[in-house]
Amino acid sequence: MTKKAIVLSSGGIDSTTAMAIAKSKGKEIYSLSFRYGQRHSVELEASKKVALSLKAKEHKIIDIDLRQFGGSALTDEIKVPKHENVEDIKDEKEIPITYVPARNTIFLSYAMAWAEVLKAASIYIGVTAVDYSGYPDCRPAFIEAFEKMANLATRTGVTKETALKIKTPLINLSKGEIIKQGNALGVDYSLTISCYDPDSKGRSCGGCDSCLHRIKGFKEAGICDPTVYYHP
Amino acid sequence: MTKKAIVLSSGGIDSTTAMAIAKSKGKEIYSLSFRYGQRHSVELEASKKVALSLKAKEHKIIDIDLRQFGGSALTDEIKVPKHENVEDIKDEKEIPITYVPARNTIFLSYAMAWAEVLKAASIYIGVTAVDYSGYPDCRPAFIEAFEKMANLATRTGVTKETALKIKTPLINLSKGEIIKQGNALGVDYSLTISCYDPDSKGRSCGGCDSCLHRIKGFKEAGICDPTVYYHP
Repeated sequence: MTKKAIVLSSGGIDSTTAMAIAKSKGKEIYSLSFRYGQRHSVELEASKKVALSLKAKEHKIIDIDLRQFGGSALTDEIKVPKHENVEDIKDEKEIPITYVPARNTIFLSYAMAWAEVLKAASIYIGVTAVDYSGYPDCRPAFIEAFEKMANLATRTGVTKETALKIKTPLINLSKGEIIKQGNALGVDYSLTISCYDPDSKGRSCGGCDSCLHRIKGFKEAGICDPTVYYHP
Repeated sequence: MTKKAIVLSSGGIDSTTAMAIAKSKGKEIYSLSFRYGQRHSVELEASKKVALSLKAKEHKIIDIDLRQFGGSALTDEIKVPKHENVEDIKDEKEIPITYVPARNTIFLSYAMAWAEVLKAASIYIGVTAVDYSGYPDCRPAFIEAFEKMANLATRTGVTKETALKIKTPLINLSKGEIIKQGNALGVDYSLTISCYDPDSKGRSCGGCDSCLHRIKGFKEAGICDPTVYYHP
């Protein structure tokens, strides 16, 4: 197999760190992002900057219209919930309103298609089972099941030597540990964005679940947070 | 769960028969088709007619751009292979050039997303392990793995009672048996199209693998083939 690796990139902390880890393992990076009916394109701009800064061989942005199905605050016109503190975020066992149906499944399916065409041996995805916010498609059991399915679905999966691996280098890391690791690898987190509700200048709200996890993460890591918040 | 069922529809014989079977089991049909960079839109026109004739509650056509990845005669500008007889189609163990990387995985992933939003209990897909032309993502093992993955990925999959089922009513049927069964259910096959290379009038070539399987199927079923062929 080749040194090629597909990396799913959202322009956030997790996927950027996953990309830096793949790079540090000598992988040739093929960055893959999606325009999926988000209300803002700030994260796609971030993903472009990240791909450039980590010297990806290629960066593709795929249009997918999840709005056609509805069902999430990130694609519908539902208000993103805000909180004062990370502790106020409701019980992580509940699935948050910002969940997008089948999102990771769809993203990984496209990554699979590209991996097959490129003969890439691995797909990197920055999911974590620690601060995973209750999304069912971030669980290790889901990733394992996806990998098994992928190797039954594709031409490359037909022999064992060419099996596709789904790599989740952050799966057991907290946000603070992720930031520490990325920082050690030289990641410039000022290029990344986590906010579900940025303003027109691309500044973060500082109050959505994703911002609160980000702020807490930098605190835990003991690293200065380079994010600009507008705090509405 | 509800009586809602998503049916993947290509406007061909198999998916149309799968839809008729779902209908005969009292399901409410939500038909799902894809515009995926095919070189012709004839099959989408067929899928619209089929959805109308089988009284689907809704028919969605999703745009997905598999051409961005390349790798197939159905999405690239590669010539579709033609044969005189169905026996001339090369060894079925080889995967044909018309294979589209990860196609069924991507289609089923979108179906999963819609099923979750609609609270649909099942997804019908007209794959068959008999005349499956060597596509890896038509194997029963793939379908089982997909179902398992789907139930780990989504909110609805969280409890056992609400588990999503992937239904493959044609899995053990030959093309002839499929046509016989559809015919008994009143399917109008003149609405369907199988050809990989139709002309501008929507007529079938009669020489691609898919046409040859269709012709053979009607012969086996002992039913008159309503298809118009242009035989180039």
